Amino acid sequence: MIGGGRGSQIGPAHRLGASIGGGFYLAAGSLDHRPDEGRAYAKSLGINDDRAYGDWREMLAGESNRTDRIDLVTVATPNATHFEITKAFLEGGFHVLCEKPMTMTVEEGEEIVRLAEETGRICAVNYGYTGYPLVRHMRAMVARGDLGKLRVIVAEFAHGHHADAADADNPRVRWRYDPAQAGVSAQFADCGIHALHMASFVAGDEVERLSADFASTLPSRELEDDAMVVFRMESGTVGRLWTSSIAVGRMHGLTLQVFGEKGGLRWAQEQPNQLLWTPTGGRSQTIERGEAGLSPEADRANRVTIGHPEGMPLAFSNIYADLAEIIGAKRDNRSPDPAATLFPTAKDGLRSMAAVHAAVASAKNHGGWVDARAPMFRV
Amino acid sequence: MIGGGRGSQIGPAHRLGASIGGGFYLAAGSLDHRPDEGRAYAKSLGINDDRAYGDWREMLAGESNRTDRIDLVTVATPNATHFEITKAFLEGGFHVLCEKPMTMTVEEGEEIVRLAEETGRICAVNYGYTGYPLVRHMRAMVARGDLGKLRVIVAEFAHGHHADAADADNPRVRWRYDPAQAGVSAQFADCGIHALHMASFVAGDEVERLSADFASTLPSRELEDDAMVVFRMESGTVGRLWTSSIAVGRMHGLTLQVFGEKGGLRWAQEQPNQLLWTPTGGRSQTIERGEAGLSPEADRANRVTIGHPEGMPLAFSNIYADLAEIIGAKRDNRSPDPAATLFPTAKDGLRSMAAVHAAVASAKNHGGWVDARAPMFRV
Amino acid sequence: MIGGGRGSQIGPAHRLGASIGGGFYLAAGSLDHRPDEGRAYAKSLGINDDRAYGDWREMLAGESNRTDRIDLVTVATPNATHFEITKAFLEGGFHVLCEKPMTMTVEEGEEIVRLAEETGRICAVNYGYTGYPLVRHMRAMVARGDLGKLRVIVAEFAHGHHADAADADNPRVRWRYDPAQAGVSAQFADCGIHALHMASFVAGDEVERLSADFASTLPSRELEDDAMVVFRMESGTVGRLWTSSIAVGRMHGLTLQVFGEKGGLRWAQEQPNQLLWTPTGGRSQTIERGEAGLSPEADRANRVTIGHPEGMPLAFSNIYADLAEIIGAKRDNRSPDPAATLFPTAKDGLRSMAAVHAAVASAKNHGGWVDARAPMFRV
Amino acid sequence: MIGGGRGSQIGPAHRLGASIGGGFYLAAGSLDHRPDEGRAYAKSLGINDDRAYGDWREMLAGESNRTDRIDLVTVATPNATHFEITKAFLEGGFHVLCEKPMTMTVEEGEEIVRLAEETGRICAVNYGYTGYPLVRHMRAMVARGDLGKLRVIVAEFAHGHHADAADADNPRVRWRYDPAQAGVSAQFADCGIHALHMASFVAGDEVERLSADFASTLPSRELEDDAMVVFRMESGTVGRLWTSSIAVGRMHGLTLQVFGEKGGLRWAQEQPNQLLWTPTGGRSQTIERGEAGLSPEADRANRVTIGHPEGMPLAFSNIYADLAEIIGAKRDNRSPDPAATLFPTAKDGLRSMAAVHAAVASAKNHGGWVDARAPMFRV
Repeated sequence: MIGGGRGSQIGPAHRLGASIGGGFYLAAGSLDHRPDEGRAYAKSLGINDDRAYGDWREMLAGESNRTDRIDLVTVATPNATHFEITKAFLEGGFHVLCEKPMTMTVEEGEEIVRLAEETGRICAVNYGYTGYPLVRHMRAMVARGDLGKLRVIVAEFAHGHHADAADADNPRVRWRYDPAQAGVSAQFADCGIHALHMASFVAGDEVERLSADFASTLPSRELEDDAMVVFRMESGTVGRLWTSSIAVGRMHGLTLQVFGEKGGLRWAQEQPNQLLWTPTGGRSQTIERGEAGLSPEADRANRVTIGHPEGMPLAFSNIYADLAEIIGAKRDNRSPDPAATLFPTAKDGLRSMAAVHAAVASAKNHGGWVDARAPMFRV
Repeated sequence: MIGGGRGSQIGPAHRLGASIGGGFYLAAGSLDHRPDEGRAYAKSLGINDDRAYGDWREMLAGESNRTDRIDLVTVATPNATHFEITKAFLEGGFHVLCEKPMTMTVEEGEEIVRLAEETGRICAVNYGYTGYPLVRHMRAMVARGDLGKLRVIVAEFAHGHHADAADADNPRVRWRYDPAQAGVSAQFADCGIHALHMASFVAGDEVERLSADFASTLPSRELEDDAMVVFRMESGTVGRLWTSSIAVGRMHGLTLQVFGEKGGLRWAQEQPNQLLWTPTGGRSQTIERGEAGLSPEADRANRVTIGHPEGMPLAFSNIYADLAEIIGAKRDNRSPDPAATLFPTAKDGLRSMAAVHAAVASAKNHGGWVDARAPMFRV
Repeated sequence: MIGGGRGSQIGPAHRLGASIGGGFYLAAGSLDHRPDEGRAYAKSLGINDDRAYGDWREMLAGESNRTDRIDLVTVATPNATHFEITKAFLEGGFHVLCEKPMTMTVEEGEEIVRLAEETGRICAVNYGYTGYPLVRHMRAMVARGDLGKLRVIVAEFAHGHHADAADADNPRVRWRYDPAQAGVSAQFADCGIHALHMASFVAGDEVERLSADFASTLPSRELEDDAMVVFRMESGTVGRLWTSSIAVGRMHGLTLQVFGEKGGLRWAQEQPNQLLWTPTGGRSQTIERGEAGLSPEADRANRVTIGHPEGMPLAFSNIYADLAEIIGAKRDNRSPDPAATLFPTAKDGLRSMAAVHAAVASAKNHGGWVDARAPMFRV
Repeated sequence: MIGGGRGSQIGPAHRLGASIGGGFYLAAGSLDHRPDEGRAYAKSLGINDDRAYGDWREMLAGESNRTDRIDLVTVATPNATHFEITKAFLEGGFHVLCEKPMTMTVEEGEEIVRLAEETGRICAVNYGYTGYPLVRHMRAMVARGDLGKLRVIVAEFAHGHHADAADADNPRVRWRYDPAQAGVSAQFADCGIHALHMASFVAGDEVERLSADFASTLPSRELEDDAMVVFRMESGTVGRLWTSSIAVGRMHGLTLQVFGEKGGLRWAQEQPNQLLWTPTGGRSQTIERGEAGLSPEADRANRVTIGHPEGMPLAFSNIYADLAEIIGAKRDNRSPDPAATLFPTAKDGLRSMAAVHAAVASAKNHGGWVDARAPMFRV
């Protein structure tokens, strides 16, 4: 692991997710931009002295020289460094799980996609919410035609944690709305993009074009804290996506509704163990995580008996479990479990980056429609 | 009452609402475009022979000549006739409650607004959902500053009753998507406009400009069955409104979320007796209809003890109860209860018509932003 | 109407329910134990001078002498007077709708049952919650075998409106827990009995024996404010019933769960427009009031289009609508709509009284099992 | 770990819980009653050859002889063997986490309690639901007086997984209702006891006496599948507990409601990240796991950022995390974190066993009230 040092939020989440999956243990790390601090923290987590590195370059060199080199490196450093580190480790022949955003620009994203193809290394990107069993089941239902042709997808990721004006100058909040630190977009890039990725994941389809309306509702903010994006997918499916960080009363707010010819689905991240399914002309019914007869994709991701809730750490761990299966299959020269191939890849990281830049461009141009695809994916 | 004959859905709702209010009884009617049928049905409802009219012109003449003329006429005829009938009765000196839409064009709407002012007659328009006690309480909370400056309003009216392709040719459904019969807009004009009116009602503010994305998700439909409208209110409040008739699994789907500086509200028409209120930095709490200490506006509209649900007919009846109070006050030359002045008027009817035409224009122009105000309200 | 004067809670509810039903209007009344006050209030409600009576005896005499005598008398006086008035009006040949409890003793209850049979007059008792369309649908589902043999019924009526110790001396609350004023039981007789009646109504079965645990959780209270009753129905179905008035956070709390061989049902009065149905081995699904294909019993009780909530006043009005149909059919010498025969009768009033006395006896005897049936219903 | 072999449900749950906690790894095991199978499975889980034991006696001997002996042994064998194994390991000087039920009789339970005291070893029992952060917060709220004096506790654990008569002969289900295999009680001992323990845990009080009504609703069952228990705690708090395995439509059904002088709480295991709190006279409000300002007990048990749900595995892991802290503090001769002392102990195991036997005795005696305390706890 690179980054995710003491005080980090995402670091422990990754270590928890990786440990639950059962396929990985923390073998090496460069956990802090201050070498001594990083080494000390790594040791405190049980990493051996000789694999507690001072920085990522040292780690790349050190691990490259070992016969028992790490199977996977997790990149959980500040956003602007993801590209450089991911690139270097892919080139060094390592599999990578990169925190989102994978890169800061579309060009960098295309470079990583090409590099992953050339090296044959896995480059996964952590859109971890797609690890929930019922999210995977939604995808399976769409894929096998339970909904018929999709018509409309409504995605939301609206919370209220940045609503307090008194808190807006808090450095922990302020940097997110400052283009110098956060890049071209705040709430859409941070949260909305998870909802957009989930829409694509479930639909098995990609966003083709979009129109965006960004709003910055606090005077002190330059970047958006509330955004509405309407889009069309390649197949013509209509999309609506709302994201907000000032929606007081919403705790997390990631929800997805999918409406097709033959039925509709509704799922919410805060109650992830239930999925509402309504066949057209029929009654709404509750699909429970863990019930008998779900898809292989859901069954693989399911860990605990029905009625006992699973939460986000298990969703997250499913990304790691997939990677363990894929990497293991590569090592053993066997076919991996097909249900383990659903983790998000560099292509998803690139598509997300392209969508962020497209939304920013549209919002600046009064909502004019913009192509949302990376150049390499345009036909 | 004019229209609302046998088999009508809205006719019985009006009669139920008026009877519950306690202030009106059905004294006269022209209930069907077939004179004999209308007279017979009127008599079956207890209307005296001499006031069971064959058409609205006969009724206008007949009632004008009586000393005990009706206090209020409800217009529940097909949409295209609302303007003509409303105009004639206002000119005849009657108070009118017109079903929505009040008119088909903005010009007609402006004419009705002017006429109501000139004649001093009441012209109410039936956006009946604003009769719910907790909707009125939301308005009162915003007005007295509980939410501080408003930032974002999210309105929805999404149902799935027109999702079934097999049902699309059913005449009861088909006419709604046929411009020749329904006018320029289907789902937005039919349902979305209720959500938009409610947003204005609660905010105490008016829509200034908007951008719309309309979609027609069934091949057989010319008009939209799914629409997203983003808007700005005169004070700068940001708005997002989604409406759909193909959202399988949603039964009615009218909800309103209001986010301000000091807190957020969430209300849903299907569970109208609870209102979720979250003060910024505090916990979400449930406001119950009928609890002690609500606003005078909510208290006036409240009928039944806390814990016993009220439904739509009582909301509807509150519009009638307001009109009874206002008309009674005019007759008795006294000041009406200020909490009875919240019913929607011709100005609301006009604003809605202007918003529909603006949304249609924007949708045709790839979502370009359009002024949503009637010319007479532009500064 | 007798009783239900100015300031009464139940009086307006009856008048609202009767007016919505469409079958009745308020023709005569003796609304207060103070004759002048009662007469004045009756006139203010639109009752003619000659039918605004000073007391119920005057009203009985007056109406008996008229050819246009009232069709139905509603008895909404203090509990202890129900028996005497109901008896007198039945003997006078009137149909009666009596507020609950119908009587104070089992013996009186048996007398009313016999009297209703002898006179052929209707004696209805107002367990008004059974007027909800979906409660009637539950009964229909059980009756037609959708649940198979019933196993367990779980009924609740738990609210928190008497939890505040500071409020316990409030006369509006205190009398309920004082045996001199309230009789042998407080919370079970007031609220629990509604849940018990609903259990019998839905099961189409009667309570045979029970065991009760009563608790009085405030030192100042002699009668119970929290009670648990376990019971067996005549068919062997197991019952559990909890009722409380100190359940802080519950607003009304009337819910019913029915579990049978083939499935389970769950309904809650505070969200009465949805019914949860789970076939054994299948998924939970939501039955919506107003959906196509419900039972005739539900269809008759349904008034408003699906998605628009109905509340308690409409449930209540269904009792009146049934009575209008039955009385009309008697008058016209025709068969009434079979779906209109579900209103609670004197037998239900008697059964409830027997259950209250049985529960009190059991609670006093450390939960020993007691026969819950009135003597006349024991085999 | 002893038991929890291939195909076991509880084995993986323990290993998952222990791994998440961060304080333990699986060092030794005797995982199956078939020695070879147990050894092979242990190795497949990464246990070294010399610690993959064939049976628990071999393991006890083997570990006793090591300087790096295991810190804690988890007993997850069939119920009837818990006593013997737990006793032997305590006597051997090991700390033990025993699956519930700790013993089959009250006498055995008292022996374990005494042994744990004499040896100074920890004997924890796995009532894992008390590991949820908000369950611990409920306990903290009660302890610090937020609810004032408690009045009534309502506990439920009702599911429908044994409702299907066709499935009743399934050996996986049938043994539970067979006294020869399951002991004196089925559903109450299996599920109800979790709810009863949680009631005691949250109240900080113990059950003193109880009255029970057991029902066996399927003809083929000897033991109860539905039970109602009413009880009084030592402080006089009133209790109601319903448990069922034929409640079709309920998935898990563990809920707790606590009503006191100053307020009420409601929590449900299926949505464990929210706790409903209603102060007397105030509005219901939602306490979110992870919100700022909760009790130290909740904060210690909290792992993931607010809005991201935690599930059962994390609750379970909190038991292990507590044990790691306590065992570590013993080893290091320091005071443990006081918030880590909430795990259930042998006393809880004993109290539960006493309550099961009391309920069985009461149910057999027509609900007569029975002392629910183990002899050693009677004053």
